[in-house]
Amino acid sequence: MSRIGDENIVTSAASSRRRPESLPQLHSVGRPVKQTIWQELGHTFKETFFPDDPLKSFKDQPPSKKFVLGLRAVFPIFDWGRQYTLGKFKSDVIAGITIASLCIPQDIAYAKLAYLKPEYGLYSSFVPPLIYAFMGSSRDIAIGPVAVVSLLLGTLLSPVIDPETNPVEYTRLALTATFFAGVTQAALGFFRLGFLVDFLSHAATVGFMAGAAITIGLQQLKGLLGIKKFTKETDIISVLESVFSQAQHGWNWQTIAIGVSFLIFLLVAKYIGKKNKKLFWVPAMAPLTCVILSTLIVFVTRADKHGVQIVKHIKKGINPPSADQIFFTGPYLLKGIKIGAIAGIIALTEAVAIGRTFAAIKDYSIDGNKEMLALGSMNIVGSMTSCYVATGSFSRSAVNFMAGCQTAVSNIVMSMIVFLTLMVITPLFKFIPNAILAAIIISAVINLVDIGAVILLWKIDKFDFIACMGAFFGVIFISVEIGILIAVCISFAKILLQVTRPRVALLGNLPGTTLYRNIQQYPAASTIPGALIVRVDSSIYFSNSNYVKDRTLRWLADEEELNRESNLPKIQHLIIDMSPVIDIDTSGIHALEDLNKSIQKREIQLHLANPGCVVMTKLYDSGFVDVVGQDNIHLTVGDAVRACNRKIQEETA
Amino acid sequence: MSRIGDENIVTSAASSRRRPESLPQLHSVGRPVKQTIWQELGHTFKETFFPDDPLKSFKDQPPSKKFVLGLRAVFPIFDWGRQYTLGKFKSDVIAGITIASLCIPQDIAYAKLAYLKPEYGLYSSFVPPLIYAFMGSSRDIAIGPVAVVSLLLGTLLSPVIDPETNPVEYTRLALTATFFAGVTQAALGFFRLGFLVDFLSHAATVGFMAGAAITIGLQQLKGLLGIKKFTKETDIISVLESVFSQAQHGWNWQTIAIGVSFLIFLLVAKYIGKKNKKLFWVPAMAPLTCVILSTLIVFVTRADKHGVQIVKHIKKGINPPSADQIFFTGPYLLKGIKIGAIAGIIALTEAVAIGRTFAAIKDYSIDGNKEMLALGSMNIVGSMTSCYVATGSFSRSAVNFMAGCQTAVSNIVMSMIVFLTLMVITPLFKFIPNAILAAIIISAVINLVDIGAVILLWKIDKFDFIACMGAFFGVIFISVEIGILIAVCISFAKILLQVTRPRVALLGNLPGTTLYRNIQQYPAASTIPGALIVRVDSSIYFSNSNYVKDRTLRWLADEEELNRESNLPKIQHLIIDMSPVIDIDTSGIHALEDLNKSIQKREIQLHLANPGCVVMTKLYDSGFVDVVGQDNIHLTVGDAVRACNRKIQEETA
Repeated sequence: MSRIGDENIVTSAASSRRRPESLPQLHSVGRPVKQTIWQELGHTFKETFFPDDPLKSFKDQPPSKKFVLGLRAVFPIFDWGRQYTLGKFKSDVIAGITIASLCIPQDIAYAKLAYLKPEYGLYSSFVPPLIYAFMGSSRDIAIGPVAVVSLLLGTLLSPVIDPETNPVEYTRLALTATFFAGVTQAALGFFRLGFLVDFLSHAATVGFMAGAAITIGLQQLKGLLGIKKFTKETDIISVLESVFSQAQHGWNWQTIAIGVSFLIFLLVAKYIGKKNKKLFWVPAMAPLTCVILSTLIVFVTRADKHGVQIVKHIKKGINPPSADQIFFTGPYLLKGIKIGAIAGIIALTEAVAIGRTFAAIKDYSIDGNKEMLALGSMNIVGSMTSCYVATGSFSRSAVNFMAGCQTAVSNIVMSMIVFLTLMVITPLFKFIPNAILAAIIISAVINLVDIGAVILLWKIDKFDFIACMGAFFGVIFISVEIGILIAVCISFAKILLQVTRPRVALLGNLPGTTLYRNIQQYPAASTIPGALIVRVDSSIYFSNSNYVKDRTLRWLADEEELNRESNLPKIQHLIIDMSPVIDIDTSGIHALEDLNKSIQKREIQLHLANPGCVVMTKLYDSGFVDVVGQDNIHLTVGDAVRACNRKIQEETA
Repeated sequence: MSRIGDENIVTSAASSRRRPESLPQLHSVGRPVKQTIWQELGHTFKETFFPDDPLKSFKDQPPSKKFVLGLRAVFPIFDWGRQYTLGKFKSDVIAGITIASLCIPQDIAYAKLAYLKPEYGLYSSFVPPLIYAFMGSSRDIAIGPVAVVSLLLGTLLSPVIDPETNPVEYTRLALTATFFAGVTQAALGFFRLGFLVDFLSHAATVGFMAGAAITIGLQQLKGLLGIKKFTKETDIISVLESVFSQAQHGWNWQTIAIGVSFLIFLLVAKYIGKKNKKLFWVPAMAPLTCVILSTLIVFVTRADKHGVQIVKHIKKGINPPSADQIFFTGPYLLKGIKIGAIAGIIALTEAVAIGRTFAAIKDYSIDGNKEMLALGSMNIVGSMTSCYVATGSFSRSAVNFMAGCQTAVSNIVMSMIVFLTLMVITPLFKFIPNAILAAIIISAVINLVDIGAVILLWKIDKFDFIACMGAFFGVIFISVEIGILIAVCISFAKILLQVTRPRVALLGNLPGTTLYRNIQQYPAASTIPGALIVRVDSSIYFSNSNYVKDRTLRWLADEEELNRESNLPKIQHLIIDMSPVIDIDTSGIHALEDLNKSIQKREIQLHLANPGCVVMTKLYDSGFVDVVGQDNIHLTVGDAVRACNRKIQEETA
């Protein structure tokens, strides 16, 4: 603020003589325009479900135009497709090839995570990306099966039907879950409930991903050590148990030799890619190289005869139709719905997070709800063409981005390559050693453990850190769903705690200004003799109204005690800065009334500064404005203080 | 604000030439003093559990003094007792007699609500009030059985053990529930969890009380119409069914005659008391008069021979010990704990609400946690002396207050009169017609239906109204617990909705000031060319971070469109007023970072105005301050605008 302003003077009582009492207030906190309940509800509804006003562009357009717009809205490809150029196509082809080479080995590996036959992984990288390319609005996301969702499906489905004894039924259940995952996603998008995904906070996701990564990594010890008998549990204890119980004769040294050496190779490639961003293709190509090399080695040495487990069977040809396999009736229907819903939501969170990240980098906006519709449709169609839940993959999307993809066309290219793979070379994959797949998975999920993010959480917000740890330990010690549940609960507990125990700050005047700030934050701020200024740092609700009242009265009591000790003038005015008070409910208003009653008994006048729109309306409706008096409601704390000083003056005069 | 101030000038770019660029800011938003995690947690813990700093007075006192203070803290009677005078005693005696005459008939009636023998009602008005008088801190509350809690106990206990076929076991279960109700209350108080009671919002309580009153009233039709077979369900449908199914031969005209005539008498008395506050004793005495008159009538006419049901059995003598009757083991223990906990909490809410109301009127403070400890101990002792859950009664406390009670001594007086009643005249009560008790209950619970409050809820806060209705219909159509549950859920849903979809308001300058206010609330406010000012009306959390980001970007897009249409200068600065943003979590900071990224792409500079203590700390820790630049964080929106204008100027110059 300026020194030459007169603000520093008006704050002292003496000077207020300089301004005539008659001086009218330039502005006052009047009664806001009354809204009908329908306007209120309508506004709430709109802001909750249609904050982005999706139909805006449709307004006053001819029907034909409306249809085209609608088509473009549902299939963005007809929108960006029109500006598609050969240049873009070139970069998309390169990106597409790169992610294809990365996805093929990953797909086979992830399918095993979900206890499905390897070809299902490839199927899921053929159809869904095509659908997404037409409906999705993200340009960088790479669609396909991902580690976490595969793990989640595997752990949720295998207790229902044992994949080993009854693989056919198990696959059917998986397809059922996929179908309902798609339905869930599409429904969330269609009913504009996209915001529910935000309830899984960043902190929770970080912890949950790290936990999942470690769980997945540990499970790979099965393949990496060539262990035959292995637990289906995912919690760290039972996994480690079944690892070391096998240590004596369960481990196979050839397998370990191959697995570990290639794992080192992959990690080195990763490291190179990290060090030099230009070499991003090194880690991208590495897995396929591993697969080819290891397959050759096994093929030549016939290591599979010496206990090195290999993929063995992998079906040739593209996705068989599977609509008839989905359980629409019978005992497994409900299970399928439940598991599908969970998997669908987790898949969403991952995809939406990725979409947002890259949208922010390239500064284009993606519509969460539209994305969900796209992902949903893609999984519904997928479930009818032998695909399991597909979504956006962190690792592949990053590669896609670095490879310079321009549009979703890179997904089409990728899916075409997967198509060729399925038609031609899948039989060769049967010699891939499981150890290599394990190595590929481990090197892929390692990135999901984001230590840096965790440290940041600790530094910035301890509560977020706790939520993150809750998710992490929940996942590794109990199960994926529980982990998520814990994190969500902690996150909301935080919000409620903040609402239940808001800060009630003591304000003081910043010398030389009419500004009043928290004296904790601004030690320079000085209190006003004869007046106490507090600010309530939250909306006033039933859950905090009594606290706010009591806390304020306590500030008052403490101050009065201080004043008595250092015989300062007794407090005659209580000013409440309402700026942060966005909303108030009836309990809150009762608290204010009680507060006012008890300070009136002590001949202290209540003043309100800068109450907002909603609050003002409610204060009027409740008649509290008349109780405090319209002229004790001020535009700023400064005005309030000036009014108090004037009153004090009049009395002393 | 003042006209002669220079604020109105500084807001226009042209004038900023008048102040030298070198002019130092008087104050700036620096880095707040860093708190260790332990300080943070410690503060949160203290404000959550010890906001009233209960041990303050104990600080640096000699042990002996500490002991005395401790004694007074647990037994306030040793505190206020010392200033007790004969004058106070006189008023307490009068008040005590008045509430005694009111409570005796009510006790007998309420005991029937809980399916207990009538004497248990009287027992519960003898011991608990004595305990409370020593430990309680409210001066006006009148302790004893109340309608709602009696109903709750009855409905929760009777499904477990049938009170008619197995009254002994039933009574034992009731005592068990009472014991654990006391334990729950004492525990809440002891562990400083008193604030949990606030989670039952005012709106919920209003609806719940009204619902309970109607349920109770309807149940009284049994007694009033002299129906023998009656449902144990409390929901309105099954009650009305069993009323009208009996209409043909179930009703007893003599009973109806007596019941209805006395009900009218009671209501008239109530009306008189309402019209003329001085005659408060008329409704207070009316019930006892009814009892005496009706008893005489029945005694003389032997109406009980003509199907008028009477109390029949009522035991003489004071509370027998009952500690040995409580189920500390066996199948009923768990049931007892669960029911006790529910009843205990409901009883608390009622008592605390009453305590607060009268404390506010007479301006003395009651310590919620201490109250709970008192009520808890009183019920624990009660459960060992044949009392069922007692708490503060709305109706009797009001009478107590109007009769001019000074201290809890009025409770002692009342309990002494109950004692005499038990010793001497109980046998006479056996002729009381049940119809009279029904009439007394109806006339008592009518007050619980507070139409005025409901209308106020509707006027002030639609959401509170919905919560209230939820509780109301939940209670009358389903059950008391469900009703409460519904209300609590709605109340919290509201808070979360408010946090998930905060208002992002567009701010404008109030002409002639440096103030920036919501242009919706202050139509006079005018926007600043080249700058967009928004205010986020909530803390920024994971649940709203994306919404806040998108909403802000939308404001930006809309404004830019407007500017293009009415070719105004393009927006170069985005100012976010952070005043209401009390807290921010990592998701929130990510949202800000994304926001900043995407506006930088459009060459728009981000400014933050007046971020609070917590937010500032986190912005520093996350390094976001360096991203925006320290000099783009301002003390007020005014400063921010001035800075923007200066920049715009420099560019144009």
